[in-house]
Amino acid sequence: MLHHAPQTLTGIRVREGNDLSDRLFETRDRSLVIAEPLSAEDMTVQAMDDASPTKWHLAHVTWFFETFLLREHLPGYKVFDESFAYCFNSYYESLGARQPRPQRGLLSRPSTESVLAYRTHVDAGLRVLLEDRGADPRIAKLIEVGIQHEQQHQELMLTDILALFASNPLHPIYRDQTISSPQAESPPQRWISGAGGIFDVGYRGSGFCWDNERPSHRVLLHPHRIADRLVTNGEWLEFMRDGGYREPLLWLADGWARACSERWEAPGYWLMRDDAWHQMSLHGLRPIDPAAPVAHISYFEADAFARWAGKRLPTEHEWEIAAADVTPGITDPKSRPFIPQPARSGGEPDMQQAFGEVWQWTGNAYLAYPGYTPAAGAIGEYNGKFMVSQHVLRGSSCVTPPGHARVSYRNFFYPHQRWQFTGVRLAETCA
Amino acid sequence: MLHHAPQTLTGIRVREGNDLSDRLFETRDRSLVIAEPLSAEDMTVQAMDDASPTKWHLAHVTWFFETFLLREHLPGYKVFDESFAYCFNSYYESLGARQPRPQRGLLSRPSTESVLAYRTHVDAGLRVLLEDRGADPRIAKLIEVGIQHEQQHQELMLTDILALFASNPLHPIYRDQTISSPQAESPPQRWISGAGGIFDVGYRGSGFCWDNERPSHRVLLHPHRIADRLVTNGEWLEFMRDGGYREPLLWLADGWARACSERWEAPGYWLMRDDAWHQMSLHGLRPIDPAAPVAHISYFEADAFARWAGKRLPTEHEWEIAAADVTPGITDPKSRPFIPQPARSGGEPDMQQAFGEVWQWTGNAYLAYPGYTPAAGAIGEYNGKFMVSQHVLRGSSCVTPPGHARVSYRNFFYPHQRWQFTGVRLAETCA
Amino acid sequence: MLHHAPQTLTGIRVREGNDLSDRLFETRDRSLVIAEPLSAEDMTVQAMDDASPTKWHLAHVTWFFETFLLREHLPGYKVFDESFAYCFNSYYESLGARQPRPQRGLLSRPSTESVLAYRTHVDAGLRVLLEDRGADPRIAKLIEVGIQHEQQHQELMLTDILALFASNPLHPIYRDQTISSPQAESPPQRWISGAGGIFDVGYRGSGFCWDNERPSHRVLLHPHRIADRLVTNGEWLEFMRDGGYREPLLWLADGWARACSERWEAPGYWLMRDDAWHQMSLHGLRPIDPAAPVAHISYFEADAFARWAGKRLPTEHEWEIAAADVTPGITDPKSRPFIPQPARSGGEPDMQQAFGEVWQWTGNAYLAYPGYTPAAGAIGEYNGKFMVSQHVLRGSSCVTPPGHARVSYRNFFYPHQRWQFTGVRLAETCA
Amino acid sequence: MLHHAPQTLTGIRVREGNDLSDRLFETRDRSLVIAEPLSAEDMTVQAMDDASPTKWHLAHVTWFFETFLLREHLPGYKVFDESFAYCFNSYYESLGARQPRPQRGLLSRPSTESVLAYRTHVDAGLRVLLEDRGADPRIAKLIEVGIQHEQQHQELMLTDILALFASNPLHPIYRDQTISSPQAESPPQRWISGAGGIFDVGYRGSGFCWDNERPSHRVLLHPHRIADRLVTNGEWLEFMRDGGYREPLLWLADGWARACSERWEAPGYWLMRDDAWHQMSLHGLRPIDPAAPVAHISYFEADAFARWAGKRLPTEHEWEIAAADVTPGITDPKSRPFIPQPARSGGEPDMQQAFGEVWQWTGNAYLAYPGYTPAAGAIGEYNGKFMVSQHVLRGSSCVTPPGHARVSYRNFFYPHQRWQFTGVRLAETCA
Repeated sequence: MLHHAPQTLTGIRVREGNDLSDRLFETRDRSLVIAEPLSAEDMTVQAMDDASPTKWHLAHVTWFFETFLLREHLPGYKVFDESFAYCFNSYYESLGARQPRPQRGLLSRPSTESVLAYRTHVDAGLRVLLEDRGADPRIAKLIEVGIQHEQQHQELMLTDILALFASNPLHPIYRDQTISSPQAESPPQRWISGAGGIFDVGYRGSGFCWDNERPSHRVLLHPHRIADRLVTNGEWLEFMRDGGYREPLLWLADGWARACSERWEAPGYWLMRDDAWHQMSLHGLRPIDPAAPVAHISYFEADAFARWAGKRLPTEHEWEIAAADVTPGITDPKSRPFIPQPARSGGEPDMQQAFGEVWQWTGNAYLAYPGYTPAAGAIGEYNGKFMVSQHVLRGSSCVTPPGHARVSYRNFFYPHQRWQFTGVRLAETCA
Repeated sequence: MLHHAPQTLTGIRVREGNDLSDRLFETRDRSLVIAEPLSAEDMTVQAMDDASPTKWHLAHVTWFFETFLLREHLPGYKVFDESFAYCFNSYYESLGARQPRPQRGLLSRPSTESVLAYRTHVDAGLRVLLEDRGADPRIAKLIEVGIQHEQQHQELMLTDILALFASNPLHPIYRDQTISSPQAESPPQRWISGAGGIFDVGYRGSGFCWDNERPSHRVLLHPHRIADRLVTNGEWLEFMRDGGYREPLLWLADGWARACSERWEAPGYWLMRDDAWHQMSLHGLRPIDPAAPVAHISYFEADAFARWAGKRLPTEHEWEIAAADVTPGITDPKSRPFIPQPARSGGEPDMQQAFGEVWQWTGNAYLAYPGYTPAAGAIGEYNGKFMVSQHVLRGSSCVTPPGHARVSYRNFFYPHQRWQFTGVRLAETCA
Repeated sequence: MLHHAPQTLTGIRVREGNDLSDRLFETRDRSLVIAEPLSAEDMTVQAMDDASPTKWHLAHVTWFFETFLLREHLPGYKVFDESFAYCFNSYYESLGARQPRPQRGLLSRPSTESVLAYRTHVDAGLRVLLEDRGADPRIAKLIEVGIQHEQQHQELMLTDILALFASNPLHPIYRDQTISSPQAESPPQRWISGAGGIFDVGYRGSGFCWDNERPSHRVLLHPHRIADRLVTNGEWLEFMRDGGYREPLLWLADGWARACSERWEAPGYWLMRDDAWHQMSLHGLRPIDPAAPVAHISYFEADAFARWAGKRLPTEHEWEIAAADVTPGITDPKSRPFIPQPARSGGEPDMQQAFGEVWQWTGNAYLAYPGYTPAAGAIGEYNGKFMVSQHVLRGSSCVTPPGHARVSYRNFFYPHQRWQFTGVRLAETCA
Repeated sequence: MLHHAPQTLTGIRVREGNDLSDRLFETRDRSLVIAEPLSAEDMTVQAMDDASPTKWHLAHVTWFFETFLLREHLPGYKVFDESFAYCFNSYYESLGARQPRPQRGLLSRPSTESVLAYRTHVDAGLRVLLEDRGADPRIAKLIEVGIQHEQQHQELMLTDILALFASNPLHPIYRDQTISSPQAESPPQRWISGAGGIFDVGYRGSGFCWDNERPSHRVLLHPHRIADRLVTNGEWLEFMRDGGYREPLLWLADGWARACSERWEAPGYWLMRDDAWHQMSLHGLRPIDPAAPVAHISYFEADAFARWAGKRLPTEHEWEIAAADVTPGITDPKSRPFIPQPARSGGEPDMQQAFGEVWQWTGNAYLAYPGYTPAAGAIGEYNGKFMVSQHVLRGSSCVTPPGHARVSYRNFFYPHQRWQFTGVRLAETCA
């Protein structure tokens, strides 16, 4: 797992200012910086059905700009290559047939070189478009969507590279790092009280958000407590030593079936080497750091761990309310939800590790907010169509691009998936 | 689909009085009445992995009484056959190894005859137990659980028999029925207004309920409307004619993938015969009745239909609140949740078809209520362990035993399943 | 494994005389005798895709007579039930659609009772046909085919019942048997010399044979030796103790892959009970008899064993030539192939256990003899269409009907299959 | 399909002289020439489980030389990278664990560059070894095996590249080619008479052959005829037009099941474009040439075609005897089998297209010759372990390296496989 801030990782910092053009091209560049340590071969291979090749990501986000911006709104724009739509459409049914997802790794052509040329071509188009029509709020809105979309794929690039390197017998290192001296022991877990009552959740600001964060609406919370920090590797090792992976009564039935069929006995990417647990990371195979947050766990594991600990997972809105107070750097203050929260008694801990470590599984299935409407047109064929059988994760991870997350952000994965940087924060209902 | 009340089906009516013993043995008898039209062969075959043989159901519910009542609480009880625990344990991990679910149909032995002898043996034990210790509330409670559990399996017996007969090229008739003259056209669909506000939901009475209906708690509802009746076959045919099964944009992504891979083009058990749609039912292969509620649809289909109709599925609590007023015959008044509902304006329709037709898919994933605790011990290894990846259905169906359903009852199935009597009621959010 | 002659098993002896009518009805009766210990439930369940339910076998062989004899050649014959063709056609593409093989076990209807009535109906038709046209050689020929076909299914009934009972946790006994006192130790294996030269093989007589035994033709054999008896369970235990199931170098690559994926560590139906190997048999679960021939082994295992033993499997014609001299009781002398075999030196052993124990895997793939022509019409849609990817077995087994086998008989199964009574006899090439 | 001689393809001609060193390094170079039109990305991707990436082939053949020559026989040789054994061992169980075959395409590392360095390193070692010990016949023998082994992989590289490019929506061209003017119509098919009698087959020379071509031994052939040329695309189109892919009675049962499940309706790589059949080839997507031999057909298809044509496939030895007379350029005269063939009557045609077009399916299963012994040690873990469930192909293809084939050469594939350059020559038995 990456313990350092993502801007350290890529060496590039996307300004969070108001200049759309700057943000666009800095984002575009950042994708290339992510790809920089990779060979063309690395960028072409698909680690598994859930993952995509880096090259595909680089081309897909570019196709997104070409399709939704340049084709529609830049008069005279010349499509780079008509065959790319088939290759790099992800799942937009309204935009025609496409390379089946599990076969993205067959695309040795178009070459990486040609994908880079595609990026240059589209970037040039975007420059013209911005100059000509950047002031048009409709264009600005679409560009913003394109930026955010590319940022999502930047995170996926990194998780998918890790999946690829973790499947390689040589355990390649994506980016080397001096091993930091072992972290001090993790501080004791403390509990943040969450009052019952009606709260506003969802995005209410005027900046960008995904459609699934809206509409902002009221929810009723019941009195609860939520942990101030994430569950650590050290705590997970206790769970393992206590037979957590061998006791079916701790697990959801589907989780136990999956744990058995895939022979889980530790989080994803953990390997026993010389009688000690190691974890494959973007820095290579490293000994487990007991103080670091556990990562690469499925919802099934998070749920089993919580049951073992006598706790439960937080709901997404318990998380949102607790996180809202402590997130000044993450999001534009204007966009923070208004929260009529009862005054907290002095001495209560603040939520730590809300962002930048691991996505945090919540107890909520990923479903529409009341009154949810997807965006119109093909661009709306996105968050809404995945609203079944997945669970919401909140926060962000060590590979989420800076500035991308929000307190109202809703990530989602299937309960068995664990190739993402996913972890767990505990909660409990007050009697 | 069965259009008649279930007591007509089985010719036996379980009294809903207070006499536990009567209710127990009437329930036990009703299972045999359900099995009566079947040969030993019919009772042995497993239609598919999701379904179980009738014989297995008959034995499993009996094993449940033997295990949780007689073994524990009847001194001197002689276990009928020690090998039955392996054969007829469903999924209780704490009770040892068991016949894998997809292989229940391999059990040509124990014979049906021996399963019937098992039932007699256990019934005799139950009579003694009731006589000796029936006044002990702990025993009474367990017997109630056993009754409710057997009722659930009575519904499954009927759905699984239908699955078996539908897979048979001869289209056997489970129970013949004079074809009723075609129903009058279905009345127009009207809308029941649901106010926003805080409501109590879940079971608050002193009678029996499943652990997943508790704790009773408050929920916040947003203003909405819910249809007064179910979607009909006639309306479903319109959806089909309008290309509902061919338009990916109407579907959740997982639903579309499933519809394609299983080549869905109509609800479950629908067959084209002589250029007309028919449906395989417990009364054999029958022409579609356009006025009857559509049945045997998956969550995916229900959701796609609602999107096509410009509506959505109701939430489980919208359903519960709307159904609460109109359910005098279903449940003991004491057990009805207290609902501080704003007075409804005159002229509003009442909810029709809440019970006894088809289970109604809701928009809610099947998850724990706040503060949920499963029952202690092996008997608690039930509703809780299935709380992932499924959706809640409300109401009851034409094959639900009389007296079994409640306004707070939460049924649950996976979004792709459609061998149950499942249908759809529409709802919409008020702007 | 059954160690007794099959007529003991069924208590019925089919006369091997010339009276076709007697042989026909004795064969028809024998099928019922085989089914006699079974309940209707036992007769309905399908143990696995490769096996069929007893009821299906009973109906299928009857459908064969109805289709090829009565429908075609008995004027005025009334088909018993037109829907049976769909249910009980095995694989005759030219005779229309049929119940998919892996779903034969779904046929709880037609009932066993109705299948028995079907048999009675068809038998009555056959009696009339025989009386009216029994002298017509074309009819006699078809009846002979029907008899032989039903005999093949009699063997399958027994192997499929064993597969069913072996999959049942109660280990039911098909037919009880006093356990014979342990056999004396098996005699030492001796070697029969086989000269090189040209030999006639295949069926040359005037009686019945399958098309795949023809045309009789010449083959060139190379000098070799063939064992006089079968490999025993005791010898197989040595192979197991020596790591035979753990050493990939002993195995064909496909065999090793199969052994790993199915976790083979002993022959089929072997189970460890109280630290001793047992084998599930038609007489229930029995301790392994070291002197009995090993049974329920795949070609892959037979081949690995032979390699371990420094030998090989015999070719089908080495087997045929060696068996020809010692088979007076098996087949009509007229039908024995003429074999210009060099005089054997005195003192050579004779082949033992050629018939009535286990089918013996040979090194030959199952392919057409030179000049092979399948029978004309639908009835020819049989042996020929399976001539790929299978291996020839010779001899017969303890569950082969008496009088069915021949020295030229060619049985065939896929190399991974082991639910049949299949064993191994060793051979070696002379330097 | 490639219609030109392979040396044209690669621009390099491996001398067939006696200088082992020249042959070795020319062969080594030829592999690089084959890879030359490919990007590193093309060389890394695995088209399907049966195929391997070019990079993997390049490394595997090098590992073969390192393992069997340099490690064993070159004192002081420094292994290039110990981890390569895991990556590039194909299936040698005696040489330890290895990358699972279906995951060879995950190996984005080692890089192509590093594989090329590996080749250089091993070539340097081979030069030293040849200089020091090239006169040692044991070394020379092993080098010869390495050459032949690399040649086999050269053919696989080309077939696997085609598989990759055929799976790419852009239909990339491996090597461009001026489209030759359409071939003249194919000459009429004529028949070569093959006498019955005893013939010597298998390799008897003193040059190199694979162990499966030995021992040379006598076989008995029956009188037959064999076609003088291959079946053409034009003839295959007739088969298609006549419903060949829709008539189950033409097919082996396993073949029909495969044809249905994979929806075959034409040979492999055939695509309908603008109402005309095209075939994907190493020269890109080209219209079908009716005069060219049909290629990319499975055994199942070859067999069905032959049945449709009223013929059969030749046996491997009918093929070998007929081809022996006409193969002066293919193989060293010393190595031609001695064939006591009866004089052929004048006017008989000669066998055409025996080599260099497509491999020709024979009716023989791939099995050991009498007295077959695999080579000792790990190097013998090759041809023998595949001797089950496959069929023999004879001749060679347009992508077989020059000098590699022999009249006694036995290629083998599973009956459903069709990614190789495989075709069909007809035969028939004389009455």
